[in-house]
Amino acid sequence: MKDDSIILAHGEGGLATKHLIDEVFKPLIGNDTLNRCEDAAIFTTTSKELAFTTDAFIVEPILFPGGSIGKLAVSGSVNDLAAMAAKPLYLSASFIIEEGLSINTLEKIVSDFAEEISSSGTTLITADTKVVARGQGGEIFISTAAIGQVVYDVSTELVSPGDEVVISGDIARHAAAIISAREQIETNPIICSDCASLWHVAESAIDCGVEIHAMRDPTRGGLATILNEIAEKAHIQVTIEETAIPIQNQVETICDIYGYDPLYMANEGKMVFFVSSGNGEKLVNTLHNIPICENAAVIGSVQKGNGVFINTRTGGTRKLITLEGKQLPRIC
Amino acid sequence: MKDDSIILAHGEGGLATKHLIDEVFKPLIGNDTLNRCEDAAIFTTTSKELAFTTDAFIVEPILFPGGSIGKLAVSGSVNDLAAMAAKPLYLSASFIIEEGLSINTLEKIVSDFAEEISSSGTTLITADTKVVARGQGGEIFISTAAIGQVVYDVSTELVSPGDEVVISGDIARHAAAIISAREQIETNPIICSDCASLWHVAESAIDCGVEIHAMRDPTRGGLATILNEIAEKAHIQVTIEETAIPIQNQVETICDIYGYDPLYMANEGKMVFFVSSGNGEKLVNTLHNIPICENAAVIGSVQKGNGVFINTRTGGTRKLITLEGKQLPRIC
Repeated sequence: MKDDSIILAHGEGGLATKHLIDEVFKPLIGNDTLNRCEDAAIFTTTSKELAFTTDAFIVEPILFPGGSIGKLAVSGSVNDLAAMAAKPLYLSASFIIEEGLSINTLEKIVSDFAEEISSSGTTLITADTKVVARGQGGEIFISTAAIGQVVYDVSTELVSPGDEVVISGDIARHAAAIISAREQIETNPIICSDCASLWHVAESAIDCGVEIHAMRDPTRGGLATILNEIAEKAHIQVTIEETAIPIQNQVETICDIYGYDPLYMANEGKMVFFVSSGNGEKLVNTLHNIPICENAAVIGSVQKGNGVFINTRTGGTRKLITLEGKQLPRIC
Repeated sequence: MKDDSIILAHGEGGLATKHLIDEVFKPLIGNDTLNRCEDAAIFTTTSKELAFTTDAFIVEPILFPGGSIGKLAVSGSVNDLAAMAAKPLYLSASFIIEEGLSINTLEKIVSDFAEEISSSGTTLITADTKVVARGQGGEIFISTAAIGQVVYDVSTELVSPGDEVVISGDIARHAAAIISAREQIETNPIICSDCASLWHVAESAIDCGVEIHAMRDPTRGGLATILNEIAEKAHIQVTIEETAIPIQNQVETICDIYGYDPLYMANEGKMVFFVSSGNGEKLVNTLHNIPICENAAVIGSVQKGNGVFINTRTGGTRKLITLEGKQLPRIC
């Protein structure tokens, strides 16, 4: 099967589907619950408060520096749980594969998927595979849903004037990696997506004892868009300092060349925290002990008012509006 | 927006996405939890045993007699829970929409989705929308995941010799409806998909007091394939009676014309029950009181051995093997 490609019969629920499951999926992501292949997986819980989230992943190219659609499909849903202070427990996945995808590529993606499940501490307990004809898909799309156990109370509505805004690391790296891969730009060093599961980051923040009001991972639409969402929902104003926002040099260069604003570019391994006044530095010090958070920084604060503003490095202030929708398609 | 079509910007997480959510999705499927638009939905549960399932839906055409991809995306996941005797509680949905889909068509699909959620007794609490460029999708794909509360113990492993096999109604109607729609065949009466949520059917079966060992909804691969799965997993033999299997005349005609075997054709609103010896008729009598189960019948029984056999109407017996994968693509 190794040298073969996906054919329509792999999606029709008969023997070919069984071979695909048995030979590609089970060796990489199989476990006792999943291998039962019942219509639904059963799990027991003693938790009273659970979190539930879903995302579809359609990123193109499906393999990129720093990750793949397989890795992203796990970390994306895990991070949505993490943002709600929920420890990831169980994951579901549905794969929509386009006829013609090579089995080798599928194995690479499922293998990345399996590795990220393992490192994120969650368990895949239910899955589905479908196949669409050539020209009716984008090589592979993956939808995941995740269930987590809520361990701390966060809510946009808790964000209030005086709060400090912390980001867990440098921005815009995922989108810049995707652009570089699409345009075949070779920077030195190469730009790698920041794609990573963040539950351990959220957990460290919770455990360090600062009062966290809200967390959010700035994916599609970037930092500026999620700050606008928070400002609108919490009826407050956010002001950030351009000089405080960490960004890699080569990411900034790519943005300059292509005319993209890094504040609107997707991240896939960053968390933005709103913490009570005076707690920003304490959180940053904690985050600096985590390898992927070396560049964590306090980047702004919350005021009475509305909208999002940035104090620029040239000394001015400008309003950051919500993205109109002119950035990149199929970024995640 | 009503006369417009989906554009790439609708999927990029900015203002255009917000308009799509606010103007198309929220009016049809909005609720307090969903409208919060947090990264994950929080729910409380007192249940210790939960069921979790997922499915991707890629059916083509996306609108067909008796349903649509919207209706199917709800009933499909609800029925996977029902087969595990789990009362559906919460649903997630991720929509992958192809650029160019008309907003009118999207509204029809989301409206069907909303109606089926309501009639199935579940609640949509988390969702995601992505857009892919023209030629990279199939109009719309929907992945759903569902969480349910287990109310009864069923398992393939409980199926044992002496069990009776009951089906809740006539077979092959969903696949026949899809074929008719694709080939523009007008039968009289028109063939409608059996697409329906089945929790109330499973619940009635559980409540009527018969000993149920396993339930399964015979979707992709049809009745013959799920019987083979059960036979293999439970290490038993299943024998069914061709004359006992309910099927609509016009469905049989479509199968004859196109050379499809109805035993391998997808159903989307049927449940197969394995009940202990002597309980088949009692279950059938209960099912007959449910409108979509008027044709419920005892269709076979379980013996020691392995494989699936059918006693044909001409007096012979033939083995029903697992589908090789030559049926219809994009059936569900």
